[in-house]
Amino acid sequence: MALVDHVEEDPEPLVELANRHVVSARQFDRRTVAQLCRMAAMYETTPHLMQPPLAGKILISAFYEPSTRTRLSFESAWHRLGGDIMSITDPASTGIAKGESLADVAEMFNNYGDLVVLRDSSDTAVYEMLESLRIPIINAGNGIDEHPTQALADVYAIFKWRPALLDAQVSDADRIRIGIIGVPGRMRTVRSLLLFLSLFPQAISEVVIICDTDDPFDDGQKAELEQAGLKLRVARRLNNELPELDVVYINSIAWVGDTFERLGEELALTARSPLKPGSIILHPLARGEELSTDLDATPHNWYFAQARGAVYIRMALLTTITQRIYQVMDLST
Amino acid sequence: MALVDHVEEDPEPLVELANRHVVSARQFDRRTVAQLCRMAAMYETTPHLMQPPLAGKILISAFYEPSTRTRLSFESAWHRLGGDIMSITDPASTGIAKGESLADVAEMFNNYGDLVVLRDSSDTAVYEMLESLRIPIINAGNGIDEHPTQALADVYAIFKWRPALLDAQVSDADRIRIGIIGVPGRMRTVRSLLLFLSLFPQAISEVVIICDTDDPFDDGQKAELEQAGLKLRVARRLNNELPELDVVYINSIAWVGDTFERLGEELALTARSPLKPGSIILHPLARGEELSTDLDATPHNWYFAQARGAVYIRMALLTTITQRIYQVMDLST
Amino acid sequence: MALVDHVEEDPEPLVELANRHVVSARQFDRRTVAQLCRMAAMYETTPHLMQPPLAGKILISAFYEPSTRTRLSFESAWHRLGGDIMSITDPASTGIAKGESLADVAEMFNNYGDLVVLRDSSDTAVYEMLESLRIPIINAGNGIDEHPTQALADVYAIFKWRPALLDAQVSDADRIRIGIIGVPGRMRTVRSLLLFLSLFPQAISEVVIICDTDDPFDDGQKAELEQAGLKLRVARRLNNELPELDVVYINSIAWVGDTFERLGEELALTARSPLKPGSIILHPLARGEELSTDLDATPHNWYFAQARGAVYIRMALLTTITQRIYQVMDLST
Repeated sequence: MALVDHVEEDPEPLVELANRHVVSARQFDRRTVAQLCRMAAMYETTPHLMQPPLAGKILISAFYEPSTRTRLSFESAWHRLGGDIMSITDPASTGIAKGESLADVAEMFNNYGDLVVLRDSSDTAVYEMLESLRIPIINAGNGIDEHPTQALADVYAIFKWRPALLDAQVSDADRIRIGIIGVPGRMRTVRSLLLFLSLFPQAISEVVIICDTDDPFDDGQKAELEQAGLKLRVARRLNNELPELDVVYINSIAWVGDTFERLGEELALTARSPLKPGSIILHPLARGEELSTDLDATPHNWYFAQARGAVYIRMALLTTITQRIYQVMDLST
Repeated sequence: MALVDHVEEDPEPLVELANRHVVSARQFDRRTVAQLCRMAAMYETTPHLMQPPLAGKILISAFYEPSTRTRLSFESAWHRLGGDIMSITDPASTGIAKGESLADVAEMFNNYGDLVVLRDSSDTAVYEMLESLRIPIINAGNGIDEHPTQALADVYAIFKWRPALLDAQVSDADRIRIGIIGVPGRMRTVRSLLLFLSLFPQAISEVVIICDTDDPFDDGQKAELEQAGLKLRVARRLNNELPELDVVYINSIAWVGDTFERLGEELALTARSPLKPGSIILHPLARGEELSTDLDATPHNWYFAQARGAVYIRMALLTTITQRIYQVMDLST
Repeated sequence: MALVDHVEEDPEPLVELANRHVVSARQFDRRTVAQLCRMAAMYETTPHLMQPPLAGKILISAFYEPSTRTRLSFESAWHRLGGDIMSITDPASTGIAKGESLADVAEMFNNYGDLVVLRDSSDTAVYEMLESLRIPIINAGNGIDEHPTQALADVYAIFKWRPALLDAQVSDADRIRIGIIGVPGRMRTVRSLLLFLSLFPQAISEVVIICDTDDPFDDGQKAELEQAGLKLRVARRLNNELPELDVVYINSIAWVGDTFERLGEELALTARSPLKPGSIILHPLARGEELSTDLDATPHNWYFAQARGAVYIRMALLTTITQRIYQVMDLST
């Protein structure tokens, strides 16, 4: 796979993530993302793992907010690495007593598993639990704050498509323009994605936020991204922007607790949209009418590849956090 | 076990099922059923599998309609074959967005597992998903349409009891009369069972449908079965028929969505019923008052053996679909 | 670990538990508890099991009453021993037909798993199921009756703290006074704990029940314990008793079905409580305001160690019941 050839294997950037919590996209840098993508590509092209690196390790899969995709993606990744799983999917069946603190829940997790994946409708739960956890926790979505591993899957798709964007230097002609159809201040997937994109300002000529509000950012969000070197612009008319976009990211659904809101229903992609030739479409899925099925059979469809890659990039991240990278880096020698 | 001695091992009929979806009993023929029953009997008599054939394989166990028996039966089978499992048991916790298509759910399953088992209150969901699935799916009950693996367990019990019924030629004296207490047009277990029985017209003198409606069949159902060579008769009075029945199949419960209907509450079996000596009773369970516990300790009780065998016949089917038959057929050399 | 050195390894007392149901604390004697604690301590100090003793074994984890801690504790133990798990956590999704008997559920479990762990709001369900089960069942809490494995975890913590209390003879100076803040007649954890403590009258100078009712015992409960040699006293004023208590056990929450009751809200422990120096506090958790977090960082905190040890003592019990003790007793040679 081109990505494997393009990036030289280097374990050192991954060492920083060993045994660490993964809560925000801010914890990553360019070299770490490159190595994770490389390991994910190795996993994606290796049919069988000779030695499952997580044999004997227990994952606590805690999804207090509804999910199928993210949960199955993580659980599939953990299974493929040879580990065992305990699931908590319905808070009502967990018997958490009135007033039981998150600190006590964290202490319980310390005793029973080796890693926690948590999705919660509260923005703060994962941060509160960090303080008492002695095992790593991965944020699988906290309220409307972040969803770092989804964004990692998004950029993995982009770098599989154009590995050269991982380079320290990218020529003007090779830089890409990315359109994001969504609301950065209200969507955790977009918030995390923008933070990851801000690690690669050398590869991105511009990020165009396409939505139907004038001020889609949270306080300080735009400034932080621009400070990192990302060029941002807000636009309203999707079809005006499409002919110049190399990557189109769309996500009209914002999860708020157990319900969802549709934002910007006039912003939709179909086979008749004026897409730039060679451009790719990403969508974290599940999708509704904002992304038409008549695009599925076109070369623009990278959202299925994005979903497939999500398992492998999670395998790479889990291998790294559980300090098992040396068991799998032999694959490339 | 008699069945193992009676049927000569032959992998060829199983090759047709390799990597195939199993949605309807119509997909099977006599020789395939015979080989599956033989493999199930091998599993039933082999205490330990040396090499678990499904190591590293992931099952997506999707039970959108309530179930314990069928789910545990499949999951037990998959565990005993050495595979891993991800369960989806509560549709409300799955976060399926309003309007997410079954095609997209199928695409997600393609990415995260190696085989799907699906139970759904919709008759059509499994057929819709087929079109987008690239991994095999097994129908574990679709509305009131079919339940092919339950029927496979039913006939496995019959052939364990009388292996000679699997032969191409069966003498008149050895043919059996089967009574089915239930409504073929409304019960998926009965619909699938009749389709399997229609593969063995040479072994069955008559199938008697015993119920309290005059026309218990769906449109075309009776004609299809008779075309295959099965002789069918409808009767009302259970006790009139019992003395001549070699196999009595009873199932008074029809699942419709999350509730159930009891059909024919006057049709019940007890130790005082005029059962033919040597006859066997089958019931897919769970049972209510239609099958009295005072029959449990009698030789007529083959419903417990039927439930036990259900794990082994599912192990045989799963081994076949995942193309692992050559890993286990060595057992018999 | 001191406990391992203090107790000589002896498989004989464990042989009695092989393949047995574990329903009540009454099934244990002093020597069996000592050997289970020793094996738990071996597990607690052994980072990796060379040969997982439960490979290929299937646990049916049936929690019909809400639970996180006990379920995760058992499932973690089973996973660490190398086994597979099928979970039933929501009775509504199990499709148990109206009128399906516990005997039939037991027969189903016989076919699909190798051991059952059951928590139920009914006192009698586990006893009813016993009669039809051919695989072992462990009571993980039946109504307000018992919770034997929780109590086993409680005494494991005590014996890790003072292994010499396991001896047949304990000097007067070394005997301990145990305070139990709770209601023995209404709390299954306390009921089971007192039964276990009654196996060690030689080590206990007195058990003080501290609560705000005059008669906290069930009919015959006090007499049974005193008959075994335990000295019991009921007191009302916690702070009067604390200075003389070596072990303080607190549990203000009694589970009744899906809700809970708080009993004795005036009985609470904080860092300002007049605790005896060197005393330890135990709490089965989850906790509320009755056990203040300002005690967490003090040497009195043995409730976290108690929760951690709960996995290892369950590993020891599961190893024993599934007749695998000889696979792990080699660890100590």
